[in-house]
Amino acid sequence: MNLDEFRSIISTYRVIFFDAYGVLKNHKGLIPGIENTFQYLKEQNIDYYILTNDASRSPFQLAESYHRLGVPEIKAEHIISSGLLAQEFLTQKVRQGTVAYLGTPDSASYLDTGTLIPLPISELDIDDCDHVEALVFLDDEGFDWKTDLNKTVNLLRKRNIPVIVSNTDATYPVSKNQVAMAIGGIAKMIENSVGKQFIRFGKPETQLFIYAYDYIRNIQPVMKHEILMVGDTLHTDILGGNKFGLDTALVLTGNTRAEDAASRISASGIIPTYICESAVIL
Amino acid sequence: MNLDEFRSIISTYRVIFFDAYGVLKNHKGLIPGIENTFQYLKEQNIDYYILTNDASRSPFQLAESYHRLGVPEIKAEHIISSGLLAQEFLTQKVRQGTVAYLGTPDSASYLDTGTLIPLPISELDIDDCDHVEALVFLDDEGFDWKTDLNKTVNLLRKRNIPVIVSNTDATYPVSKNQVAMAIGGIAKMIENSVGKQFIRFGKPETQLFIYAYDYIRNIQPVMKHEILMVGDTLHTDILGGNKFGLDTALVLTGNTRAEDAASRISASGIIPTYICESAVIL
Amino acid sequence: MNLDEFRSIISTYRVIFFDAYGVLKNHKGLIPGIENTFQYLKEQNIDYYILTNDASRSPFQLAESYHRLGVPEIKAEHIISSGLLAQEFLTQKVRQGTVAYLGTPDSASYLDTGTLIPLPISELDIDDCDHVEALVFLDDEGFDWKTDLNKTVNLLRKRNIPVIVSNTDATYPVSKNQVAMAIGGIAKMIENSVGKQFIRFGKPETQLFIYAYDYIRNIQPVMKHEILMVGDTLHTDILGGNKFGLDTALVLTGNTRAEDAASRISASGIIPTYICESAVIL
Amino acid sequence: MNLDEFRSIISTYRVIFFDAYGVLKNHKGLIPGIENTFQYLKEQNIDYYILTNDASRSPFQLAESYHRLGVPEIKAEHIISSGLLAQEFLTQKVRQGTVAYLGTPDSASYLDTGTLIPLPISELDIDDCDHVEALVFLDDEGFDWKTDLNKTVNLLRKRNIPVIVSNTDATYPVSKNQVAMAIGGIAKMIENSVGKQFIRFGKPETQLFIYAYDYIRNIQPVMKHEILMVGDTLHTDILGGNKFGLDTALVLTGNTRAEDAASRISASGIIPTYICESAVIL
Repeated sequence: MNLDEFRSIISTYRVIFFDAYGVLKNHKGLIPGIENTFQYLKEQNIDYYILTNDASRSPFQLAESYHRLGVPEIKAEHIISSGLLAQEFLTQKVRQGTVAYLGTPDSASYLDTGTLIPLPISELDIDDCDHVEALVFLDDEGFDWKTDLNKTVNLLRKRNIPVIVSNTDATYPVSKNQVAMAIGGIAKMIENSVGKQFIRFGKPETQLFIYAYDYIRNIQPVMKHEILMVGDTLHTDILGGNKFGLDTALVLTGNTRAEDAASRISASGIIPTYICESAVIL
Repeated sequence: MNLDEFRSIISTYRVIFFDAYGVLKNHKGLIPGIENTFQYLKEQNIDYYILTNDASRSPFQLAESYHRLGVPEIKAEHIISSGLLAQEFLTQKVRQGTVAYLGTPDSASYLDTGTLIPLPISELDIDDCDHVEALVFLDDEGFDWKTDLNKTVNLLRKRNIPVIVSNTDATYPVSKNQVAMAIGGIAKMIENSVGKQFIRFGKPETQLFIYAYDYIRNIQPVMKHEILMVGDTLHTDILGGNKFGLDTALVLTGNTRAEDAASRISASGIIPTYICESAVIL
Repeated sequence: MNLDEFRSIISTYRVIFFDAYGVLKNHKGLIPGIENTFQYLKEQNIDYYILTNDASRSPFQLAESYHRLGVPEIKAEHIISSGLLAQEFLTQKVRQGTVAYLGTPDSASYLDTGTLIPLPISELDIDDCDHVEALVFLDDEGFDWKTDLNKTVNLLRKRNIPVIVSNTDATYPVSKNQVAMAIGGIAKMIENSVGKQFIRFGKPETQLFIYAYDYIRNIQPVMKHEILMVGDTLHTDILGGNKFGLDTALVLTGNTRAEDAASRISASGIIPTYICESAVIL
Repeated sequence: MNLDEFRSIISTYRVIFFDAYGVLKNHKGLIPGIENTFQYLKEQNIDYYILTNDASRSPFQLAESYHRLGVPEIKAEHIISSGLLAQEFLTQKVRQGTVAYLGTPDSASYLDTGTLIPLPISELDIDDCDHVEALVFLDDEGFDWKTDLNKTVNLLRKRNIPVIVSNTDATYPVSKNQVAMAIGGIAKMIENSVGKQFIRFGKPETQLFIYAYDYIRNIQPVMKHEILMVGDTLHTDILGGNKFGLDTALVLTGNTRAEDAASRISASGIIPTYICESAVIL
């Protein structure tokens, strides 16, 4: 397996899409040196966006966390999170009324549309739920799993309403060797149990890419072949980027280790355009 | 859809297998009149067994609950629970050492084999888990879902051990209109998230039927065509019974309502030998 | 279940997306009266597009078939087929080289990009396949299933290449009571057997909607809330339209019969904005 | 990964269950030296059975093929094929009437029960199929895939009858590097397309093990811990053996290569009791 040099390959693209976890940061903080990448991109006048399945915090909060880590170049407007798609869906399809949610108050910021009334599942009265117009899975924190997941199942047995899952991930890392269940995996369990079709946002679904693509084209004209998607996970970042018609670069600083990359690409049939050790430019 | 009379159809069988929930009892207690059925079976010298996916309590405790409800004919030796299969598997394949479990102390009675050391997940130290030889999902009660399910995921990332699920059900009823997530559904979420193959016991898997069949043949010779499986759920009781080669009777006192029975049989392709209003003999 | 009148509901939209089979035509030909709908749309200056999972013929050929049936208003530029998405993907991601395909010569017209070399699987020499750069499932006709599907499996064991499925449907109707396996179902079998990730185009995936939406906006500015998706199938047309953020109308002239509509909507959790007897305007 | 010596490990068992393909034979014929294993077993008075998902030929025909290859010790009574389970199911549950099948005349020998009327799908008149009482998938040979699979789908839309799949495999090897679709994979496609529940026989389902276990105990008393299952495939042979409570030995002469064994065991969580280079005893 030949590795490509990240600095060389990006020179032919006008826009770079980055995954966040495993590419820009990990459980210890920033991937060392990644701050240089963003200085370089700025100098070279290459645009960049972070496409993330993280709906636990708003783009503004996520950007602030990069500032604290020493990357002032990442602004809220560079962050396209799956929570924004949930928000857009609710605005277009549900419009008004009570939206029950599983998540923290921070994650519920995506429900602040002015016309929706957010209601944490913990405060829902299951005997008085006729006013609930939608349900959103936002974050694995902020509720009691046993009480509130059982309440969620019963809500969906009483109310035939749209259910939105704002994160497709099954787990997320919490330390070097440990993970936690993500809200995507929890939502899948509820979906299987009630037998209804939930609406998912997040990579590898192409909606996140479309949202980003539309967003950029409101600012400047750009073609798909001018965009590179950079990610550490074959089944989300690379599959989604490929499917949307973008070139893709797999980096080895996260989910896919150097020693496994070739066999995983071969086994999955998910083929990145490039493979790079990292997205760091020294 | 023509209904068969339960009293008539059982006359040609020597042994009746009953599902418990939806056939003998429901959220309010005993199905009214079902106590007569067991008196009748005793008078007619027809043998009976209860095949249940319930591993939350021992056969002895389950039998006691029938005595309290007014059916003294049901003894512990009539109850074949999926917990017994988990116990048999552990005895044959794991034999000794620490077995971590999710469930109540009552459910852990299935781990009292004399050679196994049961350890509730809540007491497991994830940094000292090399001695754990197996993991068993027994009941949805008795642990903190968030803390202990995340601990379970990390145990399975560190230890490549057999994982046994003693109940295949996704949900169970807790009142007329409400259900709760059962341990089978929770285990499925963990299985999907770690990507490993768990070992499941419970209908429609045929192991529960084999266990019961073997058990009876230790007492008396019997052939499959002399046994009738009675259940309220097509995908567990009827599918499992059919597959094992038994005649099957669907009753309409539980999961399958009279108005849905014909369309569900047609849609699923799971065809009971008989359809009866209930298993009550007046 | 209250039915909405199709003529009334469309008046507030600027663009209508139609599914083809079950909405505009069925096994006998045109849905009687549907030709009036297109006259009406033209008079009212409402734009319309046909979004179809049919990649067996080119938009030009599909339009001609509507002309022969008596709907001259439907032009090739009104037809957005999943074959166009396969074509776009190949143009952007594969660019040049040999593309093996399963389908008829008509369906292979989607591979006429000028730089790709189409090769029917029947003419592929499995011992000389190193030059094959992609595989496309286009149509269930045009090849010998046994010989060529087995050859396809072996091609995918030798070559790690992108695989594109241009139709997500499992079956399609061939007469009042009979169906045939569609290429989507066949591709799923091959995907399961080789364990690789195929790339699918067609409803309910949102890519077809994006393609149509982008196409229209090149002509005129339009917002999602100004578009109505009309279809006969909950799991493709309605789910896809909902997910993309469009209003949706279920019609009862195809896959979903009037007597089943309410229970299917409730069971699936896929909720159309409107339910209409048909898309016919008399 | 330490390898166990096959000769040593079998000495503590009274009965050995062998998988056929990948353990006793491969595409070139017999695994060299395996004939000695059967001489040794006979000398040591260790009983042996071959548990195979192959329903393409009768046990008598399968035994003859071993004789021709130079293993006279394997008799028809040593061969437990998934076809026998299909036969037992039909005898117990269908009993009489027309049974449609997909397969060769050889495979149809399993339908010769004296009371069933076998009908190849190719001879079925879809407009006159009310007399068909069951459908059996036996072999991938013996029918035209396109015509007869489409006819099969339409049969199952007209008749709500039990469907039996006598082989769970998705593919089978035809040469060193090539495979063919097996009837199990084809049946799965049809099952997905009609949405009905088929009944499957073959490893890893435990029914094949039960059948063998019951068969032996009619001859001699034996306990599960006295039986060793030997196979080359984790997801069928080893998973099925483990689940039934048997000790299991993985051999590296078939589907699982030496270099992959450790990582596949770890990834799948399917843990054999032993790992041996082969089942050959020199």
